[in-house]
Amino acid sequence: MISDPATHPGHLKLLEDWLRSYRPEELFDELGRLKPELADLAPTGTRRMGANPHANGGLLLRDLQMPDFRDYAAKVPTPGMPGIGDTHVLGPFLRDVMKLNDAQKNFRVFGPDETLSNGLEALFETTERQWAAATEATDQWLAPTGRVMEMLSEHQCEGWLEGYLLTGRHGLFNCYEAFIHIVDSMFNQHAKWLKVTAGLPWRKPIASLNYLLASHVWRQDHNGFTHQDPGFIDHVVNKKASVVRVYLPPDANCLLSVMDHCLRSRHYVNVVIAGKHPAPQWLDMDAATKHCADGIGIWHWASNEDGGEPDVVMACCGDVPTLETLAAVSILREQLPDLKIRVVNVVDLMKLQPQSEHPHGLSDAAFDALFTKTRPVIFAFHAYPWLVHRLTYRRTNHDNFHVRGYKEEGTITTPFDMTVLNELDRFHLVMDTIDRLPQTGEKGLELKQHLIVKLAEHKRYINANGQDMPEIRNWLWHHSP
Amino acid sequence: MISDPATHPGHLKLLEDWLRSYRPEELFDELGRLKPELADLAPTGTRRMGANPHANGGLLLRDLQMPDFRDYAAKVPTPGMPGIGDTHVLGPFLRDVMKLNDAQKNFRVFGPDETLSNGLEALFETTERQWAAATEATDQWLAPTGRVMEMLSEHQCEGWLEGYLLTGRHGLFNCYEAFIHIVDSMFNQHAKWLKVTAGLPWRKPIASLNYLLASHVWRQDHNGFTHQDPGFIDHVVNKKASVVRVYLPPDANCLLSVMDHCLRSRHYVNVVIAGKHPAPQWLDMDAATKHCADGIGIWHWASNEDGGEPDVVMACCGDVPTLETLAAVSILREQLPDLKIRVVNVVDLMKLQPQSEHPHGLSDAAFDALFTKTRPVIFAFHAYPWLVHRLTYRRTNHDNFHVRGYKEEGTITTPFDMTVLNELDRFHLVMDTIDRLPQTGEKGLELKQHLIVKLAEHKRYINANGQDMPEIRNWLWHHSP
Repeated sequence: MISDPATHPGHLKLLEDWLRSYRPEELFDELGRLKPELADLAPTGTRRMGANPHANGGLLLRDLQMPDFRDYAAKVPTPGMPGIGDTHVLGPFLRDVMKLNDAQKNFRVFGPDETLSNGLEALFETTERQWAAATEATDQWLAPTGRVMEMLSEHQCEGWLEGYLLTGRHGLFNCYEAFIHIVDSMFNQHAKWLKVTAGLPWRKPIASLNYLLASHVWRQDHNGFTHQDPGFIDHVVNKKASVVRVYLPPDANCLLSVMDHCLRSRHYVNVVIAGKHPAPQWLDMDAATKHCADGIGIWHWASNEDGGEPDVVMACCGDVPTLETLAAVSILREQLPDLKIRVVNVVDLMKLQPQSEHPHGLSDAAFDALFTKTRPVIFAFHAYPWLVHRLTYRRTNHDNFHVRGYKEEGTITTPFDMTVLNELDRFHLVMDTIDRLPQTGEKGLELKQHLIVKLAEHKRYINANGQDMPEIRNWLWHHSP
Repeated sequence: MISDPATHPGHLKLLEDWLRSYRPEELFDELGRLKPELADLAPTGTRRMGANPHANGGLLLRDLQMPDFRDYAAKVPTPGMPGIGDTHVLGPFLRDVMKLNDAQKNFRVFGPDETLSNGLEALFETTERQWAAATEATDQWLAPTGRVMEMLSEHQCEGWLEGYLLTGRHGLFNCYEAFIHIVDSMFNQHAKWLKVTAGLPWRKPIASLNYLLASHVWRQDHNGFTHQDPGFIDHVVNKKASVVRVYLPPDANCLLSVMDHCLRSRHYVNVVIAGKHPAPQWLDMDAATKHCADGIGIWHWASNEDGGEPDVVMACCGDVPTLETLAAVSILREQLPDLKIRVVNVVDLMKLQPQSEHPHGLSDAAFDALFTKTRPVIFAFHAYPWLVHRLTYRRTNHDNFHVRGYKEEGTITTPFDMTVLNELDRFHLVMDTIDRLPQTGEKGLELKQHLIVKLAEHKRYINANGQDMPEIRNWLWHHSP
């Protein structure tokens, strides 16, 4: 073994013998220059490996033909309207992206076996699953020309999509949230590749790698603890801020706006987390478009502060935390009407980071204007709560941030019980608020007592009935601003 | 399709027809009880699936026969002695664990193809790689009886080890740090299984799942950016605190002590991160044993505080950060001898978390005693710096924590340059300290100026010579306490 030729003459001799076996005297002239007749063998122009446009997909990239996402809006005449499931609203938009790019053949949707299960059934109105083998009578939507790529291997889906993007096309990977960790390591390498190539002037930007994580931690139906892991975004935000983006649209119109943005973007990894179950809708399309452009904002229609500083900021990020926060606000406004409450919703998670850490980060002044410098912030978060602390620890008001999120408590249970197990439910959010506001006094303590009874009632009810209490299932937002 | 039998009589009829096709009248009596002659067919005792001891490995688990880890100690008569590479010291200990349990056949070492590359060559003095197919003359250490399991698939290694543990045996998975992310999702499921089964009284604890991550982010030799990702521990600490443990031994004797503990432990996931390259050794075996039992502590021999509160706390976690911190302390003690410096080293990462969050967490009083309530803490960390903030954001002195770690800057370069690129090197640590201590005045500013010149000199030197400057390569600790 040649381990250290610098200090072992025997090693040096072995190395020399080995290198001489390539007969360098036939390849180089006496000055060590490659002989011209050999140098001439190398290909030129785009036939050079590094200059072949297929190895520099950005050169071949053509913009997607995009429909106007506003045309697919859910009707939301007033906040709190029942919705059909956010990804089911997204489906027709993706279907038409597919249709409009059928001629230029540069858009595909990838996923293990979950296109239907993630609520994107509309895609099959215009295309099929790609399938080149024999089909049987009971098969659905299989065709050699299909542009939906399904294989029950997240690795295969990720690899297909990366290759598709690197050669100058566009795509979307839809996956159950918990199982996207399967490709953590592949994501790593792609994100590293994006970071490095962004610094090489001859490399042209490629389309972003877009993840749509539906079937998320809070709504697992017949699945349980094994299907609950919202940690992919913890993994993602470790990569260079210049290439990663994370979005948690609270409703269908926000999802449409975010997805339109992601499909047009270049050289990022975009992670979008969205629900597929019927859920309340909050913003009409104009409000959603503005909210997503801002990435974060006060929901004045849900707040009852009146110009002055609020007593508490109720912040939320993710569709289920937004629902629970608004239900908590509803209880507080009814039971403790003197409290001045501000509701802040976060769509673009990276708004929370300091400007110095992420290009999307809010300035400290803007952050303080939203979250105040001194008031308690009760923050309901989609994923592991520590991520919010990690992103905000340098902010003025960080010591007053009280974050609820998933803390690895779950089983096969009702949707509301999932939030109760992790203390993200409306009742715990109200109790947290009371704990942070001593001025709620006797009335606050009474309300807390009442909610503790409610939580016990909830447990009894779901054990007896296998579904959530009617007041939870049928809850509707009904406040005017 | 039967989607809603409760409200669709047609669906209900389909459901009833389907269930009746199982002919329940042959299986149950008129009161709905299973017929006794059928009930009697079920196996009894340990022949029941759930009571089979092979499905409850803890019942079969036998303690490992353990050699005394102190017998494998690196000789460290004085701090800073050159070492041969920490995992190379661990190797003979693991070899003897293997040897002592050869008769009871309940210990195996798993890894992709890195047993040698991770410095565990001593294992092949007593066993081989398990290999049942034909061998060739150039093959090394292959045998059907081998107890080292190698396959270049991290998934296969993880699956093998999980099965081995679940059926009542013991093992260790050694892996390059960056590539352990390949099994993120499998780790998730195992950690969830440990959490749930810890609450089932009939399930007996199994041996811990032990990861040894050598070949880590800071020492990648001929590998580069693709091989740099210290984020597995971010992923791990999202799981329930009751089942996860993370250790970063700063030298070989600490590694021996930690590994002895891990191999004896039950029902945890232990992650141990260690170096394989020659590096200074800090603690003799007695000091190492005590330091690892504490998990965190002041290194008095490196500090020059004299009873009062120090001016600055230099904290370090991980072998390379410890080296750079001590080199920084050395510069500070020479150039600014009036500064009172405390050195704190962290072996057990979970000591940083509040007691309420992790069973290993320090009390706030103990934390404040180590890190002070008011002094700047310059923290050199092995992995992504945000993890330290995430673990410490509730601590009194958190606002004064300034953490350096890996921030996705890397390439194929010299070992010291890796730390420079991420500003974790001794020079940056000194400059950080000066920035936080205005009392260093003119002398501090001069030293900073000098180090900026040094950093430029470093860049020139490595570009010209392809290795680090002699003063870096040959640096030795030489202070007495």
